[in-house]
Amino acid sequence: MSEMLKVAVLGAKGRIGSAAVAAITAAPDMELVAALGRNDSLELLREHGAQIVVDLTVPDSTEANVHFAVEHGIHAVVGTTGWDAERLATLSELLAQHPESGVLIAPNFALGSVLATRFAAQAARYFDSVEIVELHHPRKVDAPSGTALRTAQLIAAARTAAGVPASPDATETELDGARGASVDGIPVHSVRLAGLVAHQEVLFGSHGEALTIRHDSFNHESFMPGVLLGVRTVGTRPGLTVGLDGYLDLEG
Amino acid sequence: MSEMLKVAVLGAKGRIGSAAVAAITAAPDMELVAALGRNDSLELLREHGAQIVVDLTVPDSTEANVHFAVEHGIHAVVGTTGWDAERLATLSELLAQHPESGVLIAPNFALGSVLATRFAAQAARYFDSVEIVELHHPRKVDAPSGTALRTAQLIAAARTAAGVPASPDATETELDGARGASVDGIPVHSVRLAGLVAHQEVLFGSHGEALTIRHDSFNHESFMPGVLLGVRTVGTRPGLTVGLDGYLDLEG
Amino acid sequence: MSEMLKVAVLGAKGRIGSAAVAAITAAPDMELVAALGRNDSLELLREHGAQIVVDLTVPDSTEANVHFAVEHGIHAVVGTTGWDAERLATLSELLAQHPESGVLIAPNFALGSVLATRFAAQAARYFDSVEIVELHHPRKVDAPSGTALRTAQLIAAARTAAGVPASPDATETELDGARGASVDGIPVHSVRLAGLVAHQEVLFGSHGEALTIRHDSFNHESFMPGVLLGVRTVGTRPGLTVGLDGYLDLEG
Amino acid sequence: MSEMLKVAVLGAKGRIGSAAVAAITAAPDMELVAALGRNDSLELLREHGAQIVVDLTVPDSTEANVHFAVEHGIHAVVGTTGWDAERLATLSELLAQHPESGVLIAPNFALGSVLATRFAAQAARYFDSVEIVELHHPRKVDAPSGTALRTAQLIAAARTAAGVPASPDATETELDGARGASVDGIPVHSVRLAGLVAHQEVLFGSHGEALTIRHDSFNHESFMPGVLLGVRTVGTRPGLTVGLDGYLDLEG
Repeated sequence: MSEMLKVAVLGAKGRIGSAAVAAITAAPDMELVAALGRNDSLELLREHGAQIVVDLTVPDSTEANVHFAVEHGIHAVVGTTGWDAERLATLSELLAQHPESGVLIAPNFALGSVLATRFAAQAARYFDSVEIVELHHPRKVDAPSGTALRTAQLIAAARTAAGVPASPDATETELDGARGASVDGIPVHSVRLAGLVAHQEVLFGSHGEALTIRHDSFNHESFMPGVLLGVRTVGTRPGLTVGLDGYLDLEG
Repeated sequence: MSEMLKVAVLGAKGRIGSAAVAAITAAPDMELVAALGRNDSLELLREHGAQIVVDLTVPDSTEANVHFAVEHGIHAVVGTTGWDAERLATLSELLAQHPESGVLIAPNFALGSVLATRFAAQAARYFDSVEIVELHHPRKVDAPSGTALRTAQLIAAARTAAGVPASPDATETELDGARGASVDGIPVHSVRLAGLVAHQEVLFGSHGEALTIRHDSFNHESFMPGVLLGVRTVGTRPGLTVGLDGYLDLEG
Repeated sequence: MSEMLKVAVLGAKGRIGSAAVAAITAAPDMELVAALGRNDSLELLREHGAQIVVDLTVPDSTEANVHFAVEHGIHAVVGTTGWDAERLATLSELLAQHPESGVLIAPNFALGSVLATRFAAQAARYFDSVEIVELHHPRKVDAPSGTALRTAQLIAAARTAAGVPASPDATETELDGARGASVDGIPVHSVRLAGLVAHQEVLFGSHGEALTIRHDSFNHESFMPGVLLGVRTVGTRPGLTVGLDGYLDLEG
Repeated sequence: MSEMLKVAVLGAKGRIGSAAVAAITAAPDMELVAALGRNDSLELLREHGAQIVVDLTVPDSTEANVHFAVEHGIHAVVGTTGWDAERLATLSELLAQHPESGVLIAPNFALGSVLATRFAAQAARYFDSVEIVELHHPRKVDAPSGTALRTAQLIAAARTAAGVPASPDATETELDGARGASVDGIPVHSVRLAGLVAHQEVLFGSHGEALTIRHDSFNHESFMPGVLLGVRTVGTRPGLTVGLDGYLDLEG
């Protein structure tokens, strides 16, 4: 019989943190050994024998949390934002001194979203045209969404690398804004509609055919399968992995 | 047994005109009595006993064609553009002198498109949010499409008449163009994609629900059922009708 | 200044009832005067001066509730199921004796769903083909959904009335179930998918074009605009109205 | 400057064959050296110096055509059906004796369809639920489509290999056919609608999210980019490749 994974959650009182606590508690192969809030000591991780820590805190504290974990032989699954190039470089150096430790830094734990972005990047070079339509609730303050920006950048990079020309477009007269925002040359359209949550369509087209990859995110529950996949995998992947897709098996 | 309708086509050599010739020839209740090109005399309509004429010519000749028909007791179904307010007023005066004659001026014969526009206008007042996404082939020179402009104007008018406030939108930072073009306050997004033909989605949303009305036009065959409906109906509707929806039975 | 409508809710402790209590409380033109559970006396409606009662109870008690309201000059907006032909006939007789009273019996308060069904019924006669795809969460026990059944029946009736032949279908070899269930001759396909809530697409097609009417219901909040519309309208519509669409303004 | 590829087409009079002739003629890096019909001798391939042959014939003749090509040092790109396991085995043996020759047997040249199928197979193990909706013109005689069957089989195999349980489904009462056909446990729904051509949606769902991969095929032009990709690649891939996805670069 396989042993239970001993897991701790940092940021356990937050909206996503408390969902993670519930998901880990419910997982048959995991034991929740600590659920820490902002004023709890990291020493509790050691006292409770955590093997893996899930960091869902804030940009200000995530770096110290992860360093503590690595230094004490605890693997880390990190959903907190704020990991810029400098922080990642410092973490890589630290991991070089602790070659058995694994860290996953994942800006997005929704498997469907991670897969949609990856598929879009892979398909990008094989079509004449590509545009993105993202649709969100009307309380969102930024347009386009961060996911749409990142998807467009990955698509543009893939097309440039493959030498694909710009999408054809004969528009001569345009009402300002009709053709969307241009993100590295990829048109992105942002819809804001009461009733919706977070949705994205990447539309590809060539003569005679179209391919559409759509992701719908209805609520934060969608992060939990990705968090559990991270917890189950991080102990077998020493070193630094950025992006949950690094843990996905996409062969075949 | 009902008699066959004797139908003539003007502009019979054009792309849509030749499709109309084929559709009328195939219709079991119609007899094609004349198929005229640009150099043929309108007198041929009388010689062949046309009861109904389908005008699919050009803006320069359509007014004279329709006046000729009205003056000779021939009903007219008109798909040609160029009928501005002045021409319509003149035609109404002429029809007042020929009270038995019927004329249908229809900018769009695709039943699905006509219904989609009408439903969108009816639904407009019952939702918090509304946006339009139209998608066309990349050879299109204008954005948004004429159909999208007209749909947005009808929606905006319906919402104003019902006292509905503007759609909620908390956008603070926007990449130029992301939120689309504003047509009377309705956001319209224009996608141009190889492989596509002509498509439009009207998206309505309120707390907890969304309604989407989508029309796909794949080719000009889609105009023919509307042309035949016009031919079958025009003789029973004396006077001027603008828009095919005036002939649709939408009760119940 | 217009006076506030004095509204009571029956079944106020239920999931939808409590949402109605919240919505009425928040409405600027309504005053919630009573929120009754199953053991509360209907006499409280009179004591608190209710002008309109919203019945969101159970099939066993709704008939008595509505009769009490009608007999005491209180208008009723009813979302409870169980109103068969016999109950409706009895209620009509009672209303004939109270000609100033209005009652709305609405099986569905989601405006988008009501509109989608109505538009589908109106469009039904104008297309060669029609099919329904409904998509729900996998905990649903019946397939197709009640809404899909009703939509298919209305579509079939409209096509029969207009003399439209059956949708073309050349299928010769079919894996059992592939072509869906036949509801009065209309194919209905039921998808059950984790993550979804309640969604329906009605697909119409003719040569060269397609019309799709899609409704997405994300949660019970979607019923509240319809409940409020019912409350605001019922006092001006004496007699019995079945279906919220009877209160919608769909001219023009 | 790179030399032109000398290409011949077999089955050049057929619908797809004649489109291939046009596409190859238009390609700036290819020279069409022969366009053969059913009565033309294969010796013409040698006489005209074909380096690559595109076989778009019929199941009865494709095997002999490909063997002739391999034996004469001509690479082959094959879109004809009828290549069962036995034929493939025989061809592999022949290729072992001609190690410089390349053959691509591709049941589907539409890049979008090939990518959609591959992405669906990759995503299959990461979601609780999966169903397929395929939509075609009403003249189609089989349901489900061959593409839907193959997609369902690949999805089922991927889920079995990863130990994923069956999609949840609480259906207790079902109108016969509502839940679709079961293909290796995957529900498949077949819509037949006038106006449509060939379309497929694979729907994945888990708690809180959904991923949809949709492919639309509007006409046979969609095969041509895949045919040209095959022609450009086959000379660099000695041996037998089955499926155009073997030529796609899907890393990263």
